[in-house]
Amino acid sequence: MQTITCQYSKDTYNLLTLIIFGINYSMRVILPEIKELIATKKKHAIRKVTAYFEPADIAEVWSELTLDEQLILFNALDKKFAADIFEFLREDQMLELLNSLSVTRKRDILNEMSPDDRTDLFAILPSEEVEKLVPLLEEDEQIRARELLAYKENTAGGLMTTDFITASEDMKITHVLRELRVKAKDIDFIQNIYIVDNVQRLKGIIPLKVLLTTNPQKKVESVMDTHIISINLDMDQEEVARIFEKYDEPAVPVVDKLHRMKGVITYDDVLDVIKEETSEDIYHFGAAAVTDQYLVANPFIVAQKRVIWLIILALAGFISGSVLEHYSFLLSNIVTLSFFIPILMNTSGSAGTQAATMVVRGIATGEIKLGDIWRVIRKELFIGILMGIIAGAITALRAVILQGDIMLGVTVAIAMIVAIVIATSLGGILPILFKRLGVDPALMSGPLIATILDTTTLLIYFNVTILLLYRF
Amino acid sequence: MQTITCQYSKDTYNLLTLIIFGINYSMRVILPEIKELIATKKKHAIRKVTAYFEPADIAEVWSELTLDEQLILFNALDKKFAADIFEFLREDQMLELLNSLSVTRKRDILNEMSPDDRTDLFAILPSEEVEKLVPLLEEDEQIRARELLAYKENTAGGLMTTDFITASEDMKITHVLRELRVKAKDIDFIQNIYIVDNVQRLKGIIPLKVLLTTNPQKKVESVMDTHIISINLDMDQEEVARIFEKYDEPAVPVVDKLHRMKGVITYDDVLDVIKEETSEDIYHFGAAAVTDQYLVANPFIVAQKRVIWLIILALAGFISGSVLEHYSFLLSNIVTLSFFIPILMNTSGSAGTQAATMVVRGIATGEIKLGDIWRVIRKELFIGILMGIIAGAITALRAVILQGDIMLGVTVAIAMIVAIVIATSLGGILPILFKRLGVDPALMSGPLIATILDTTTLLIYFNVTILLLYRF
Repeated sequence: MQTITCQYSKDTYNLLTLIIFGINYSMRVILPEIKELIATKKKHAIRKVTAYFEPADIAEVWSELTLDEQLILFNALDKKFAADIFEFLREDQMLELLNSLSVTRKRDILNEMSPDDRTDLFAILPSEEVEKLVPLLEEDEQIRARELLAYKENTAGGLMTTDFITASEDMKITHVLRELRVKAKDIDFIQNIYIVDNVQRLKGIIPLKVLLTTNPQKKVESVMDTHIISINLDMDQEEVARIFEKYDEPAVPVVDKLHRMKGVITYDDVLDVIKEETSEDIYHFGAAAVTDQYLVANPFIVAQKRVIWLIILALAGFISGSVLEHYSFLLSNIVTLSFFIPILMNTSGSAGTQAATMVVRGIATGEIKLGDIWRVIRKELFIGILMGIIAGAITALRAVILQGDIMLGVTVAIAMIVAIVIATSLGGILPILFKRLGVDPALMSGPLIATILDTTTLLIYFNVTILLLYRF
Repeated sequence: MQTITCQYSKDTYNLLTLIIFGINYSMRVILPEIKELIATKKKHAIRKVTAYFEPADIAEVWSELTLDEQLILFNALDKKFAADIFEFLREDQMLELLNSLSVTRKRDILNEMSPDDRTDLFAILPSEEVEKLVPLLEEDEQIRARELLAYKENTAGGLMTTDFITASEDMKITHVLRELRVKAKDIDFIQNIYIVDNVQRLKGIIPLKVLLTTNPQKKVESVMDTHIISINLDMDQEEVARIFEKYDEPAVPVVDKLHRMKGVITYDDVLDVIKEETSEDIYHFGAAAVTDQYLVANPFIVAQKRVIWLIILALAGFISGSVLEHYSFLLSNIVTLSFFIPILMNTSGSAGTQAATMVVRGIATGEIKLGDIWRVIRKELFIGILMGIIAGAITALRAVILQGDIMLGVTVAIAMIVAIVIATSLGGILPILFKRLGVDPALMSGPLIATILDTTTLLIYFNVTILLLYRF
């Protein structure tokens, strides 16, 4: 805790007292005071107060500040802290701020940013804009930036940072420690030292913990771990996330085809990937469009993306309409039949969605593999029969009580059982088939399954009716 | 790489050659050879070969081994490596193995396990079983175990490990390094040294990286970071995950109400929490039961859990049946009306699911807050109108072309527009209302929304028909 001297104005003094005595004080709560402070444009005071907060906290309230306030605040901070905040901003906030910064400030921030976050920023900018920004970087950072830009965004190469520390096998630990002391300041998260040969091929790893607890006179060779989990440059980010979930490592090295050390992926990149991939799965499964930042997205574009699915579903839905049309002689003869159409379609659609939900998620987490298809079918058949009997009984009861028609009850019950068994089985099988065809299983969405089942359910219902009811 | 001497049999020799020359050789591929090796019961050879694999890799093929094979393999390994594998097993595999181990082996494994994983194991055992196992622990581990068992499983206390290293403010860095050397071996992941006062209150943090790069003669006080992100013991695990996602820290300290240092939560625990919480959300949203390990779960229990939702949905579905019944005079007069019921119900159900998918996920990731309800409504109303016009036009076209009835086309189109606007709006609002009522928003599932919309859509359809079509 710093002592507060008279160099601060009364306002700042009050603000500092507030922060110091309110442990874990929320940035949002004292936002009015922060805005007042920004209005004074006192750089030193602004720097002092914001230092009490985490970059992530400041980024969180960023949208509550006007662009002018953002600029005063941002320009008052030293470049390291400013770059930290910048990395936590939303993409649209980054772009807006970047456009308003002076060239000098842009240069400072871009050079301070970690290489992987900088590449993410470049990825959302038009390429002519990137070509203007890259020359602002220091020479070695330029080379790195161009290298990283060459990798696809959703591969290991696009995720990794090039900030890592290497050593060679014949070094002594004390030598490695000396190197570390020089380079560590510029790197956010150091978990391992990577041991490479003279052509940068990865030979081993020494965790920081081991480095600290080993006799400094030992040779790297005798201490390093040669059982290395590594990731190839072109591995898909979804598979990268799986590796992290499986091995529980906080940082994994990335190598090229010749096993040369290229970069490091850390747990925090993976948290972002998992969030992104999960959202994508969920949006697909809800037949909704993949939309970043729902609240700020352009509604025209969202509607456009969603309506494509809706049209596909509507066209598929015409098939069930045609089935209905084809069997309309049944409906005009027995009007009561139509009362059970919504419940049959709805219940089988729900049963199918339930099964598909389990299987789509199971495939996503890696629990269900292609080879498990028979286990899934057996399970869902069984579950379908159990649930069908119960749902059938309830529906039959309604037919007997409200319509007083036992034969109608039997018909509806049998249709319900068959429809639900088909529903759970198809709900289980279709996502696995999609996976086998190389299509995202989540695209076999709840609404799509419900639409498919509408048709099968109507066919089952009318045919059971003809068999049992119509002939009498 | 070790040189291979004649102490190994020919089989083991071949196996080792296989592993050494096949870089990143998959455990699954050489499983037949591993099984042969296990059958020889040569402990030394088993230990030698398995050492080439990661514990997570061995755990992954665990279910391919018979219980006998599992026991021979497990008992051949040194206790540290065995415990590492054990921690990666599925819960049911852990229980099966544990039951077959000798008391000595049980003691070894339980003492070697990290405190948080051990607590997770105890949490799935009956309490009388836990009471038998705890006395097997070393004295200080017993105290820790009992303390951790007292916390609820899904809170910070239930997630944290008690393996951490503390130092006091007046120590010199060199002193801290000495301490670290003694204690580091027993701790899997060390990110920070936690600085506490004489009553264990957390005062500051020194990251390992800083420890390594600081002058060893400096005092802790002058080096430590006093801006600490910490988590309270009783914080819900979902909120814990948010903290990690927000601040990008690999390890966060857990404190009690008096700010005393109690434990540490690491990124890998959070990966598990995120996976678990996301699965729960997805299962809820699919109106499916929350079921761990789908493939091994008892189908009776799965059916029982799922059928509850199905019954609720079926009963709600009766309402739409009654609506149909109430307006059946329309259907018997204009039979063509019924052909459009499936498409209307299906399209509005899908549109509602789309909107709900976005909002439920947005609430889960923290993007959408309770206060955003008006922004969501405005957005979904707008999207609903756009999509309704398109879907309405397509449906009208069908009516005009196939039924040759322009008035029917207009009726269906208007019903479709109104139904879809209601669908997107309700799909957007209902999850937020659930959240406001303190209910998991994901429980406003796709099937539930579709069921609700079935009724509203039929009501809209029939009333538009009466207004436009029936009177002519």
